[in-house]
Amino acid sequence: MRITLKECAEIIGRYNSFLILTHASPDGDTLGSAFALKRALDKIGKPSQVICNDEIPQKYSFLWDGIANDTVDFEAVIAVDIADRKLLGEEINSKYGDRIVLAIDHHLSHRDYAENTFLCDRASNSENIYALVNEMNIPIDSGLATCIYCGMATDTGCFLFTNTTAKTHKTAAVLMEMGADFALVNRKMFETKTMSYLKLEQMALSTVELHFGGKCAIMQITQEMFRESHSNDGECDGIASLPRKIEGVLIGITIREKENGTYKVSIRTVEPYDAAELCAHFGGGGHNRAAGCEFECSLEETKSALLKLIGEKI
Amino acid sequence: MRITLKECAEIIGRYNSFLILTHASPDGDTLGSAFALKRALDKIGKPSQVICNDEIPQKYSFLWDGIANDTVDFEAVIAVDIADRKLLGEEINSKYGDRIVLAIDHHLSHRDYAENTFLCDRASNSENIYALVNEMNIPIDSGLATCIYCGMATDTGCFLFTNTTAKTHKTAAVLMEMGADFALVNRKMFETKTMSYLKLEQMALSTVELHFGGKCAIMQITQEMFRESHSNDGECDGIASLPRKIEGVLIGITIREKENGTYKVSIRTVEPYDAAELCAHFGGGGHNRAAGCEFECSLEETKSALLKLIGEKI
Repeated sequence: MRITLKECAEIIGRYNSFLILTHASPDGDTLGSAFALKRALDKIGKPSQVICNDEIPQKYSFLWDGIANDTVDFEAVIAVDIADRKLLGEEINSKYGDRIVLAIDHHLSHRDYAENTFLCDRASNSENIYALVNEMNIPIDSGLATCIYCGMATDTGCFLFTNTTAKTHKTAAVLMEMGADFALVNRKMFETKTMSYLKLEQMALSTVELHFGGKCAIMQITQEMFRESHSNDGECDGIASLPRKIEGVLIGITIREKENGTYKVSIRTVEPYDAAELCAHFGGGGHNRAAGCEFECSLEETKSALLKLIGEKI
Repeated sequence: MRITLKECAEIIGRYNSFLILTHASPDGDTLGSAFALKRALDKIGKPSQVICNDEIPQKYSFLWDGIANDTVDFEAVIAVDIADRKLLGEEINSKYGDRIVLAIDHHLSHRDYAENTFLCDRASNSENIYALVNEMNIPIDSGLATCIYCGMATDTGCFLFTNTTAKTHKTAAVLMEMGADFALVNRKMFETKTMSYLKLEQMALSTVELHFGGKCAIMQITQEMFRESHSNDGECDGIASLPRKIEGVLIGITIREKENGTYKVSIRTVEPYDAAELCAHFGGGGHNRAAGCEFECSLEETKSALLKLIGEKI
């Protein structure tokens, strides 16, 4: 059932302890949402635990700085920033996917899986948590403000993407006044690249192919590249935006080989092309300008399926 | 003479037409400042012309979209975002450097050269122009808002750098409400890379040397690289921030060979290292976290002079 922000606050009021689920391959918005919610629940004496199907990269440790994330004997399960229960990851999905009391999400492509769903199309889901915390009159300290800022900055590419609004900037200003450590978040999220990531980026860039008169760019990342550069999947959050940044490119595609040999495809677009719509053709989803889907066929088949669809649209 | 914002408005009131000078190797803040001021002067019926020692890259054309920048029989010369008259570039400096009536700048390292100087340490100089336009009660349309947004976004790295404040975000929100085409500016300034620039970046990255246990990174860009990658100096605004982004690096140095064989050095730092102070040792200047200086000796001598100084500080 779709619910209002007020009902969302009421549901949280009914339970005393929570398990908070993030999506697999966690990013700054799902984690920022989860730890912001956990910090808010801490303040009203309701214990909670954040869990993730995959290991959480160490660079996010500032999100749980000063708080404990111990095992909790929980009464209710909450999912944050999760458009589809499949995105929980296999283990978490099979364990908790059918017993989620509350989903708080911002993806218009959300496929209802929870008993109650609060969905609002803000730039980041962390802004939904911010609205919820305000609705519940829970005071926001610098740690909580930092978590929300982290989510906002992640999903707007630090106020770069077109989902940024005047409201986003106003909220950022308020969070900074509340003590959000924006300098730390920006440095960790946008200003730090490992040498191994930089090597991976160089290798990936050398695979770029331009199609349709340069309007579409396809870049590949193979498991071999991860090995050669000593980098890993968790390091390359931002790499999927590279092909779209090439001058003249309107549709940028990154094909990443997964450990099991299947392919994760990320699509980034410029107006009027809709990344979510393109990915939906292959069972994926996301936002208008950034979306993803998966392929279990070969690399060549993946590429030709993508190029065929794009050829029809472009 | 240092003057207040009110006096700055009064001085502009005394003249009927202006020549507006930007610095050489123009960036989004000097150009954003200049065209914002020109657009404001247009609105009160005072003709002006923006000039620059170097060719203005085509990617900035949105700044003068819809207005004419014709030759003007000017009464007064204004310099915007210029810390030192040397930065005007040789030709413009020799022609106008000693007859500047008004300098509007935001560099704390400003070396007085104008008859009157309005200096306020805002993140970008465009925010000083915004304050001036408000002081003069000139209405801001979307074109003018776009110019100011361009300067702010340039000098804060799109709200990424530590010079960003809650006030910066609030101003950005107001400018967006006034119709600033933030999506266009962000795409042109941060989201578009030419293939030639990407090639240059790969070549430059392959030269990175780490010093002092990885706390200092030095990267080189040679004229040969510009030739091989078919890129040019005007394309690589952001490249100087790359070495500092490497994990663990506190002082990032980019040494760029100029056409005449001398070297332009850009330094980017993380607290507590002061880039402006480091550059001041070599006659340069700038901001705490981003500054520059020039060397006329060989590459090896340039590097060893820099490493000697940094060795003393680190």
